[in-house]
Amino acid sequence: MGPTQRSDTRAEVVERLIALLEEAARQRVKLAVFPELALTTFFPRWLMSQPEVDSYFESAMPNPSVQPLFDCARKLEIGFYLGYAERTDSGQHFNSSITVDPEGKIIGRYRKVHLPGSVEPRENSDSQQLEKRYFQYGDLGFQAFRGAEHWHSPTMGMLICNDRRWPEAWRSYGLQGIEVMLIGYNSAAFDPNGGTTEDLALRTFHSLLVTQANAYMNSTWAISAAKAGVEDGFGLIAGSCIVDPNGVLVAQAGTMGDELVIADCDLDACRQGREKMFNFAAHRRPEHYRRIVDQVGVELPDWHSRR
Amino acid sequence: MGPTQRSDTRAEVVERLIALLEEAARQRVKLAVFPELALTTFFPRWLMSQPEVDSYFESAMPNPSVQPLFDCARKLEIGFYLGYAERTDSGQHFNSSITVDPEGKIIGRYRKVHLPGSVEPRENSDSQQLEKRYFQYGDLGFQAFRGAEHWHSPTMGMLICNDRRWPEAWRSYGLQGIEVMLIGYNSAAFDPNGGTTEDLALRTFHSLLVTQANAYMNSTWAISAAKAGVEDGFGLIAGSCIVDPNGVLVAQAGTMGDELVIADCDLDACRQGREKMFNFAAHRRPEHYRRIVDQVGVELPDWHSRR
Repeated sequence: MGPTQRSDTRAEVVERLIALLEEAARQRVKLAVFPELALTTFFPRWLMSQPEVDSYFESAMPNPSVQPLFDCARKLEIGFYLGYAERTDSGQHFNSSITVDPEGKIIGRYRKVHLPGSVEPRENSDSQQLEKRYFQYGDLGFQAFRGAEHWHSPTMGMLICNDRRWPEAWRSYGLQGIEVMLIGYNSAAFDPNGGTTEDLALRTFHSLLVTQANAYMNSTWAISAAKAGVEDGFGLIAGSCIVDPNGVLVAQAGTMGDELVIADCDLDACRQGREKMFNFAAHRRPEHYRRIVDQVGVELPDWHSRR
Repeated sequence: MGPTQRSDTRAEVVERLIALLEEAARQRVKLAVFPELALTTFFPRWLMSQPEVDSYFESAMPNPSVQPLFDCARKLEIGFYLGYAERTDSGQHFNSSITVDPEGKIIGRYRKVHLPGSVEPRENSDSQQLEKRYFQYGDLGFQAFRGAEHWHSPTMGMLICNDRRWPEAWRSYGLQGIEVMLIGYNSAAFDPNGGTTEDLALRTFHSLLVTQANAYMNSTWAISAAKAGVEDGFGLIAGSCIVDPNGVLVAQAGTMGDELVIADCDLDACRQGREKMFNFAAHRRPEHYRRIVDQVGVELPDWHSRR
């Protein structure tokens, strides 16, 4: 997807999503992946009052604004992944995604676990990364779900944006045997935490690198969809891609705008890795992995203080 | 390193390693990384009797054959990583590596945790992968160690070959704040587990991909050294490389033979990732990572049997 401006209405965005679905149907696509927060601009870049923040959230899914997308998908027999800001009945806020099957039924729900950024805004910066302020940490974990029969019932997982940089998230799904990972993202074309060492090229490289490597290391397909381009003056990288279980890019976005990136995903391609190099039962050694769950942050060795 | 044939003696190999160290010293190198099993051919490719297998192991390190390498390094004030087959006093066999400081002292020991291949040979194959037969699983875990003052005392880790494909291994070191990862490997230029879908190009791509991505995701330098070329008729990939904490290749082998691959590694380059994107204390969520230690192999979801 290309950018969505603050002034764009939900109706305008849903119209763009429908146009993409219709073109996808013409090309016999069975599953479409839309980005993180696909219905709005990437609003965590601004410090806002709570009522203003709330205007970016959906309190039901589908809801009247989004219903036309569900209707269109059902008519075209296409499923989709959609990222959106979720407000629950009890008033919780999550950065969420759903997977909808070709009959319009929600078959998977995910809430982003790895929220980047900070609760408090950085001083003297016109661009913030306030996901830790506006969202709660996802409380559903990494739960694989069964894809539609229309897609040959793959074992599937979802991640959102920053999650894709965390190998723990991929492995948690890999240990459930996933065959297709769906990812939506909005990634700044500059360092969202301040600093000048990261630019569009480096951040696009990082996005591809982690998607390719984690797909390979977990013997899964990965479909990763950006919202790209300039939103209200702030750049987002592109880099939407489809990666095979070898970590090889089989399709990639060529523009910063609304665009289809299409590939056939042969689920049997997962078997080479799963049965050999990454036969987890044969080769993993969890007795040596305790630090991964026993500690959160870096714990420097004792001698480090001597440095 | 280029290939080492079955008929090559330890003295001949050590002579090659010394020639590389001497050239490195002329170029002011402070730390050299040699491959896995650097003193011999990659012998796990053959089914052999135990006495023959034992001839590939070192029962002391250093020992008279290898002492000239230690002496040369101390004279030149270069440290090194060396992979070798280790037989302990109690008769255990490990695929091991050491890091030696510029004074000739062993400052780090590692024993390969992720042994690939199988205990029993595959039938009708002239090339085996019998590491699980000839070695025991490493029993030292992933223990960071302090590099020499001559190298500005980096926090360091070691992996061997197949370990580099396992994000759990990297993260276990990352959680100790490592700044430099040393890796030696021998990777077949074909599928060592049988099969025809992997070739030299794909396997070289995999080797670079996992090294770059895991270096990035753990904000560390990585120095990865192949034994390459054709050993006794069986091809090994090259791909030796030095990767910065952005996952960017800063130096790479250009040949399949003995060759120096050199870079300056600025330890401060680890800070961007460590303090922002991969600030583990701020962003990791271990409460959702339990599967990584609670299960070894894939556990398919309940509904999977219905497929």
